[in-house]
Amino acid sequence: MMKTGFQRVARLVHHKALPRNPHLLPRLHQASAFGSSTDSLVARFCPEKTDLKDYAIPNASWCPDMLSLYQEFLEKTKSGRWIKLPSFKSNREHIQGLKLPSGLAAASDKQDWRIFTRCIQLEGQGYEYVIFFHPSEKKSVCLFQPGPYLEGAPGFAHGGSLAAMMDETFSKTAYLAGEGLFTLSLNIRFKNLIPVGSLAVLDTQVEKIENQKLYMSCIAQSRDKQTVYAKCSGVFLQLQLEEEPSQ
Amino acid sequence: MMKTGFQRVARLVHHKALPRNPHLLPRLHQASAFGSSTDSLVARFCPEKTDLKDYAIPNASWCPDMLSLYQEFLEKTKSGRWIKLPSFKSNREHIQGLKLPSGLAAASDKQDWRIFTRCIQLEGQGYEYVIFFHPSEKKSVCLFQPGPYLEGAPGFAHGGSLAAMMDETFSKTAYLAGEGLFTLSLNIRFKNLIPVGSLAVLDTQVEKIENQKLYMSCIAQSRDKQTVYAKCSGVFLQLQLEEEPSQ
Repeated sequence: MMKTGFQRVARLVHHKALPRNPHLLPRLHQASAFGSSTDSLVARFCPEKTDLKDYAIPNASWCPDMLSLYQEFLEKTKSGRWIKLPSFKSNREHIQGLKLPSGLAAASDKQDWRIFTRCIQLEGQGYEYVIFFHPSEKKSVCLFQPGPYLEGAPGFAHGGSLAAMMDETFSKTAYLAGEGLFTLSLNIRFKNLIPVGSLAVLDTQVEKIENQKLYMSCIAQSRDKQTVYAKCSGVFLQLQLEEEPSQ
Repeated sequence: MMKTGFQRVARLVHHKALPRNPHLLPRLHQASAFGSSTDSLVARFCPEKTDLKDYAIPNASWCPDMLSLYQEFLEKTKSGRWIKLPSFKSNREHIQGLKLPSGLAAASDKQDWRIFTRCIQLEGQGYEYVIFFHPSEKKSVCLFQPGPYLEGAPGFAHGGSLAAMMDETFSKTAYLAGEGLFTLSLNIRFKNLIPVGSLAVLDTQVEKIENQKLYMSCIAQSRDKQTVYAKCSGVFLQLQLEEEPSQ
């Protein structure tokens, strides 16, 4: 499986749906190359009733900036244009009832699987974040507060922790905006270090959807936008998840 | 501090040492723009006697591939050409007695600071890795085994966890090979997913040192090199750490 994995999935897409000659490409709709609308993806992703713990809610470790901007965005969700995304312990919980493309069957053992950005459960020590998504504009805002377990240079967040946060924000946005499933590339330029315990705001946008790829951009900056921490672009591969056959 | 942080440090370098007109640049040596040799950096970085816990040693969670390749490289260290890098809990321990450039003073409180790639201390659950460094060829090999807390797609390592591992391997290599201190950019192309619990080998190289920047490359692949997981390039800024005044 290792030798074929993602490459094989990508090849399936390239060879079956995307012949090498670009003039032969099927015409893809701007919104999505597939059938699922953003609305139905969001409805599935954000269940109204669930027993799953949502980690994207305020706790005592959140700094005042993070807390007040969270409240601002929560107000905006009342109009229905913004949606607060729940954040479960594992992506397995986000895609319940769906299966990955052929060749990427998930191990089903009883390990304590955690999505990387929720790997540390001690409040305030690792990743604190919440993502708000704007379906019609295909954009997201992630409020991110790195804790002391995410250190790189003493007192500052590791560049890799921000890279992972950007990838994760891209990932959720790309999935909901157009079934973007796998990161093909990330291109990050770091400008300033994020002090541990402070807020970084990640403004994320789907720039275009073309040839079964989503082109994403992100800028991470302080709340007052006076300090840019990093800029990032990313490309995601669209792949449709299938319903699992009912047991 | 936030507004000036890294940008200010970079500006200091650019304005003081690197005037805008490239013809006026001071001539920089290939090995390093600064005074410290790789030998002295390595000697400081790898203390022969220390009470600090080294996390880069085998434990029961290591898969057979990881363990046997570790032993192979450990054998190579006997010739003195390869060096096994110790991996402490925080970068504060790696740079003991040195201070960051002006404007990046580290908070000195009693928090439990951890370098991001050692954020999870449960054996096998998070990052398992060890870096071997080859000073004269300015290259490194990182053996990386992602655990179930580093999940992205179910059963596979999160792209962000690999991005962080590449950044960290770059970071240690860039520092020892030429005082590369801060990541300026990362450019990652993902090819295949890494199954959780398996080994990825990160071959990392300093390609060139020019204008106080180190240009790095990395390829992450399976041990048999049949599966490429990702390719990455990175640019690091050289900055010399100063001795802290003795108390």
